[in-house]
Amino acid sequence: MIIHKLAVIGVGLIGGSLARALKAAGQVGEIIGCGRGRENLEKAVELGVIDSYTHDIGAAVEGADMVFLAVPLGAMRDTLMAMKGHLAEHAVITDGGSVKGSVIADCEAVFGEVLPGFVPGHPIAGTEKNGVEASFAELYQNRRVILTPVRETDENAIERVQAMWRSCGAEINRMAPDDHDRVLAATSHLPHMLAFALVDMLSRVDYEEDIFKYAAGGFRDFTRIASSNPIMWRDICVANKDAVATLVESYADEMTQLAIAIRENDIDTLTKMFTNAKKHRDAFIDGI
Amino acid sequence: MIIHKLAVIGVGLIGGSLARALKAAGQVGEIIGCGRGRENLEKAVELGVIDSYTHDIGAAVEGADMVFLAVPLGAMRDTLMAMKGHLAEHAVITDGGSVKGSVIADCEAVFGEVLPGFVPGHPIAGTEKNGVEASFAELYQNRRVILTPVRETDENAIERVQAMWRSCGAEINRMAPDDHDRVLAATSHLPHMLAFALVDMLSRVDYEEDIFKYAAGGFRDFTRIASSNPIMWRDICVANKDAVATLVESYADEMTQLAIAIRENDIDTLTKMFTNAKKHRDAFIDGI
Repeated sequence: MIIHKLAVIGVGLIGGSLARALKAAGQVGEIIGCGRGRENLEKAVELGVIDSYTHDIGAAVEGADMVFLAVPLGAMRDTLMAMKGHLAEHAVITDGGSVKGSVIADCEAVFGEVLPGFVPGHPIAGTEKNGVEASFAELYQNRRVILTPVRETDENAIERVQAMWRSCGAEINRMAPDDHDRVLAATSHLPHMLAFALVDMLSRVDYEEDIFKYAAGGFRDFTRIASSNPIMWRDICVANKDAVATLVESYADEMTQLAIAIRENDIDTLTKMFTNAKKHRDAFIDGI
Repeated sequence: MIIHKLAVIGVGLIGGSLARALKAAGQVGEIIGCGRGRENLEKAVELGVIDSYTHDIGAAVEGADMVFLAVPLGAMRDTLMAMKGHLAEHAVITDGGSVKGSVIADCEAVFGEVLPGFVPGHPIAGTEKNGVEASFAELYQNRRVILTPVRETDENAIERVQAMWRSCGAEINRMAPDDHDRVLAATSHLPHMLAFALVDMLSRVDYEEDIFKYAAGGFRDFTRIASSNPIMWRDICVANKDAVATLVESYADEMTQLAIAIRENDIDTLTKMFTNAKKHRDAFIDGI
């Protein structure tokens, strides 16, 4: 058994799915859940996702040999603060935050150092749904989990976190925190911004009703991620500000150039842009 | 039987699926396919999608009581020109073009009028795949077909086209051509531009390989439409220039404002934008 006592701080899709996967794999003794919403936590006990719960973060981590932080990025610092003084000596802490630089900075701010037992991580998995009822044991099967340890991180702690994720069916990759944040800004944060911005913009035109009436499958797929949790994504924007803003600015430029090409009937530019995009998108699909 | 002899000009996903659906419904006597690629047309005969084929558009429409134009928008005018002088007296012509104003203008340019037997149409259905092998009889089931007849259009011709699409399982809506083009620019043309532009932009960054390596389901869904036919979409841009360019320009503005909000930690603007988008996207999904 990899974990004796697991504390899951934030029992939603991400935290709940980890708990379910570890139980299904028989790799965890006891799971204590922690959060603010009583209803969600009671549901989690009822569903067998966790064994018990508390609203007190300090109490939750007491005696835990593994702590998983699945709270919004904006709540990470306060959560770490509440854990201070309650962690077991050899506790390993990891998280599921979508931005790694900010979580590492939060840890330094709270503890005065990046704790050797803290292994910053990010499972590349999720849906646009929230809450423990959306969680399922297979969420991490064949998905990647990126770990971004720093110089201070204890190698044994990394190995324990890797073993945990592997038992959930995930593949582990290591990256530098900055590289992670730059790559995820492009693959995840920017597309979410684009989808939110599109639906927001279209909600203000006077023929909005017709737009949604005549929208087909392409529109549905394209805007699915605009149904994601707005607060979570606002926090991601703030936490990964530079990388996201840089890409949004580049994209604004790309849009301006595209508008000019369309206005000027610049067939060559349009053909090149669309052909290049198709080539790269098809190659991406072939690769998975 | 609604149709005695159907001529399908362009036997790909759209034309092939109409042919298959009409055959499945037993609503067509004979189907002749027309196109440039011999291999695709032979495949279409082999698959039973069409009964015979020709590369000669004039010969294809000879004696047909229904003509369906499923060629790229950029080929529409030449196709109509090739039909001139070969159409049966009571032939009904309809099309599947994604832009209606341009097709109507093509018809006027070729025939000096919008033919009374020509019913401009647009089935809101499709996938990112091309060719007759991607076609299937159920493509139009429970999908909308928008017809955009003009003042000159013969009411009997409209009724025949409606009956044809209904027998394929589609629901018919009528709109003015301009309204169609404005609404489709928002629901379909703009999202395709955004997806092409995103993949094109990301293909040029120096960490492209990592981007595609770590991309997950959200990115896959969001960029699926960037695998669409580049030439078809270039033609759509050109044919619906004003509506598409106006939206791309608005979107460039939206991006610029978003970048400013992120740079300035403008939590209120981000929260409002994302929350509003989620509300409208969720309402759209509830409605279908």
